Amino acid sequence: MRRSTIKDVAERAKVSLKTVSRVINNESSVAQATRARVTQAIAELDYEPDPSARNLRNGFSFAIGLVYDNPNPYHIIAMQKGVLAACRETGFALQIQPTDSNSPLLAEELIEFVQRSRLAGLVLTAPMSERKDLVDALAERGIALVRIIAATDDPADGLPCVYVDDRSAAYEITEHLIQLGHRHIGFLWGGPRHRSSGERHAGYERALQDYGITVDKRLVVPGDYTFDDGFRGARRLLALHEPPTAIFGSNDEIAAGVLAAAKSAGIDVPYELSIAGFEDSPFSRQSWPQLTTAKQATEAIARQATRLLIAGLRRHAYADDATPPRNQGFLPQLVVRGSTAPLRPRATLAKPK
Amino acid sequence: MRRSTIKDVAERAKVSLKTVSRVINNESSVAQATRARVTQAIAELDYEPDPSARNLRNGFSFAIGLVYDNPNPYHIIAMQKGVLAACRETGFALQIQPTDSNSPLLAEELIEFVQRSRLAGLVLTAPMSERKDLVDALAERGIALVRIIAATDDPADGLPCVYVDDRSAAYEITEHLIQLGHRHIGFLWGGPRHRSSGERHAGYERALQDYGITVDKRLVVPGDYTFDDGFRGARRLLALHEPPTAIFGSNDEIAAGVLAAAKSAGIDVPYELSIAGFEDSPFSRQSWPQLTTAKQATEAIARQATRLLIAGLRRHAYADDATPPRNQGFLPQLVVRGSTAPLRPRATLAKPK
Repeated sequence: MRRSTIKDVAERAKVSLKTVSRVINNESSVAQATRARVTQAIAELDYEPDPSARNLRNGFSFAIGLVYDNPNPYHIIAMQKGVLAACRETGFALQIQPTDSNSPLLAEELIEFVQRSRLAGLVLTAPMSERKDLVDALAERGIALVRIIAATDDPADGLPCVYVDDRSAAYEITEHLIQLGHRHIGFLWGGPRHRSSGERHAGYERALQDYGITVDKRLVVPGDYTFDDGFRGARRLLALHEPPTAIFGSNDEIAAGVLAAAKSAGIDVPYELSIAGFEDSPFSRQSWPQLTTAKQATEAIARQATRLLIAGLRRHAYADDATPPRNQGFLPQLVVRGSTAPLRPRATLAKPK
Repeated sequence: MRRSTIKDVAERAKVSLKTVSRVINNESSVAQATRARVTQAIAELDYEPDPSARNLRNGFSFAIGLVYDNPNPYHIIAMQKGVLAACRETGFALQIQPTDSNSPLLAEELIEFVQRSRLAGLVLTAPMSERKDLVDALAERGIALVRIIAATDDPADGLPCVYVDDRSAAYEITEHLIQLGHRHIGFLWGGPRHRSSGERHAGYERALQDYGITVDKRLVVPGDYTFDDGFRGARRLLALHEPPTAIFGSNDEIAAGVLAAAKSAGIDVPYELSIAGFEDSPFSRQSWPQLTTAKQATEAIARQATRLLIAGLRRHAYADDATPPRNQGFLPQLVVRGSTAPLRPRATLAKPK
């Protein structure tokens, strides 16, 4: 547990103490090859300059901020775990900043958060990460950031991000329901300000179209990423003259709400109603039956995003000219469990009591 | 949204800029009454000295750390929300530090966390808050802290804490089950390193004794505060020759695991088996039937603890001689929902399949 010293770095990089100091203070008088050797030794030894001296000398901060606005505790905790894992790899600390994504002063609030706490950079999650005005305002103020967004492709806009292909995963879930024989499939939206929700809806619609099923707008219900909205949305769908035989909730909390609504109406899941969620949160394995879902590697996604951010910070701090790390995409994977099945041939749907 | 300036403080306190500056820098040349007026103006205006100048001048930090080791995301998020609420009241930032409470180097790790991030103090949650060796080691190093602990009374050991009377609340839950007619009541432990778990067990035993019911050790199962341990523990209890007619899980996640085990065995809850949890997490309202539980005001508890910590920091920073705020106790309240009921007279328990 002994903390590495500047002397350890000098020995490993085979340079003088003075040279290590120059690299740390980002002075220009060090040859590129030497600088690279020192930077590598610093990384390998997990060396950190004395924090007070460091702050005085070069103003480099070793804390980053995580910004989120999400009603799902499992999702937030998984995000935090991933960010913390990357922070620990590199000696950074984490400040958390739940925010109100509706705030008209959001950019100012985040700029103040960064300045007040002298943060080195921000990990922005959806929906903040998907607001171009906000991201531009932060970037213009020189705030280092990385975004976690929903997108089928790298936006390639020059800013670092990790993107999750929610649309393709939602397509797969819908296709799974169609292949079980369902034609009347309900869809419950998540938070409308989250691009993921629109992407999941787009995947749902596209799969129906590809299989020649007419999209019935009555089967699509707005809401947020919460259990309560899943419960309410399902009640509404199940009260239709022709209720759906399957419901796709935009996340696992919504799907759990659908399950509760079905149970309270005496409907047998999965034989009278199939239910699918999204995310593979612990939630999806703790219901009875367990939920079919799309496994979204939230922790790995957050870790990778944070690595991108920190790599950028280090490049900046050490004036490293290496190629920047590339944006990375993730595709959630279909996980089939007990909540989806073919309709029982003889089944007629029980109407909610 | 304009940030208050030192000039605003001076005007409100009716003193010179120089005097405000002396108070901020904790110089001794200010009369006590004047100091109090300035301190109050600073609090009312939510004034913060310029962060960089502040760090250089007096080393006072405006970030605190939250230390936890808990497998329950709902519980952690509620704690974070409460701590953040108190931070926002006072302009502090929050760093989070999930820790391994088993680590033999825990004290060193936390001291390094505080020093590296220049934190003003720590909010310690259980089980770390309940380890005397750890708390003493931190206090000896001059680290400001507040503890959230399980205890029937204020430990009155000179260190700030908020204490939760888990024992009395568990007594009430057990009494509720007894009053429904149950005599054969199972108990599933939570994390053994958390004092709350022992306190809840003590409340359970005491209620049985008070009602003249012999404590049957076969009905008490060890485990952790998780859904999976609830599921496993319930399977074990339900496989007994004489299974319990009611099960008290030490938190809502455990109780949800019990519910899943009962459902998978075709047992009708509550008529063939009553189930109670603890905490009133959203979890307890999202199961079917909803869980009887004890409402623990986790967010309010964490907010109050953080207020104690920050009040202490300000007293120290501003050399305030006011009476320190007092430790505060909380008593979780019984909430009766659909998962507990009298046995149906004709019922015979279904054995698990």
